Amino acid sequence: MARKNIPQRSRSYESDDEERGACEWCEYALVITLATILLIGVSALTVFWVVYYRESYGWADDIPEKQFNLHPTLMVAGFITFSGFSILLYRICRCFRRIYVKLLHAIFHALAFPCIVIGFLAVLDFHNKKGINNFYSLHSWIGFVAMGLFGLQYAVGFFSFLLLLICSKGTASFRASLVPIHASFGILTFVLGVCACLTGLTEKALFTLGSETYSSLPTEGIVINAIGVSVVAVAILVLYTVRGTGGYRIRKVAQHPS
Amino acid sequence: MARKNIPQRSRSYESDDEERGACEWCEYALVITLATILLIGVSALTVFWVVYYRESYGWADDIPEKQFNLHPTLMVAGFITFSGFSILLYRICRCFRRIYVKLLHAIFHALAFPCIVIGFLAVLDFHNKKGINNFYSLHSWIGFVAMGLFGLQYAVGFFSFLLLLICSKGTASFRASLVPIHASFGILTFVLGVCACLTGLTEKALFTLGSETYSSLPTEGIVINAIGVSVVAVAILVLYTVRGTGGYRIRKVAQHPS
Repeated sequence: MARKNIPQRSRSYESDDEERGACEWCEYALVITLATILLIGVSALTVFWVVYYRESYGWADDIPEKQFNLHPTLMVAGFITFSGFSILLYRICRCFRRIYVKLLHAIFHALAFPCIVIGFLAVLDFHNKKGINNFYSLHSWIGFVAMGLFGLQYAVGFFSFLLLLICSKGTASFRASLVPIHASFGILTFVLGVCACLTGLTEKALFTLGSETYSSLPTEGIVINAIGVSVVAVAILVLYTVRGTGGYRIRKVAQHPS
Repeated sequence: MARKNIPQRSRSYESDDEERGACEWCEYALVITLATILLIGVSALTVFWVVYYRESYGWADDIPEKQFNLHPTLMVAGFITFSGFSILLYRICRCFRRIYVKLLHAIFHALAFPCIVIGFLAVLDFHNKKGINNFYSLHSWIGFVAMGLFGLQYAVGFFSFLLLLICSKGTASFRASLVPIHASFGILTFVLGVCACLTGLTEKALFTLGSETYSSLPTEGIVINAIGVSVVAVAILVLYTVRGTGGYRIRKVAQHPS
């Protein structure tokens, strides 16, 4: 009787899992399609805004404003588009081999890395050329913490989840214990990046359009607001996806960390 | 033999649960202490900023700026302090009876409701008195969606999880299916409230201090930035708590929705 009960309960769990699995796949397909459109769209919209309204890009001394334009474009690309893709791909590529998913995650963050570094240097050099103080605004404070966390996360992630695979068995428990910390701080870095983008867009709208022109809502104002709304939409989708699959991935990884 | 195996496995799970339970309680005690300090602190800091630097409050025609001051104070109180407490209490009060936790959740949101309504009317009337357009900025777009969602969530939550208890058994499955939707949209409303606060603080710093004074980082600038940093810290703590206990609560409620 007891022997009969065990496989029955096991089958019931499997059937639940299958049903939930089918639902989850439909849901994820929708989320991923939307997220891909938004992640590419938000960077495309930023490039369009700069090229159409802000005289495109440059790194010459005569027009430092063109150099500044690299800042929003590269920061949106680094903190939103590439980081967003990296997080989503890590959570969703369930059918790939684990090491390939990790490499994809590392590659997308490796693409984000130079964007963030050059984006930061662009605004730092712009401020110095124009004689503007650095790190005074709420935007810069949030952005500074986001950049620091991004660098730390990349270094720790690369060392722990890729380099330590040289000694796979010996480091398994250490890597497993690091997974939830890396995941939590990764989401925190992404959320801080989103906050920095929103406050930065608000600053830029007021600096370049001025409060009076901005309040009449010219088309450039609408484009800036649309970039902000897209950033919020990306954040919602990424947080929603991470929330739905987070527990599953972490539990799975904790058992088989390599 | 089979009979012996079942209780052994059951004991093993229980012991895991106990260990995790003790760890979780320590973690939650720390998170709750920090969250309480930050949730009260962020509103206290906003009141201090307005009273000390912005000539306090009022609703007279001669100084509309005093009327505007109600906007940041009440919005921070409504969207951050009261909403934050409401979400945290709902997630953490595990030992209370379910109906008391629900009532506490509803009461804290009921305290947030008038704050948000009066905070909104204060800025609307201020804009009309000063001849400034409404709903042009990224801050106002995000804030408008956050307010709409807050109202909708309160109405749906009050009707579904309190009023429908009149017919508890008949509405159990409907209420259970609504729980994850209500939870997700609740977190979304909170995150949008946080984004609206950060963009609003950036706007206010640039409007009242001006870009030149703000860039020299006067003490008022530091206070405004500190409010923003506290809002971000609250958001991190609330999202962290919701992430840690979300699955547990939702699964439990789906089984026993009343």
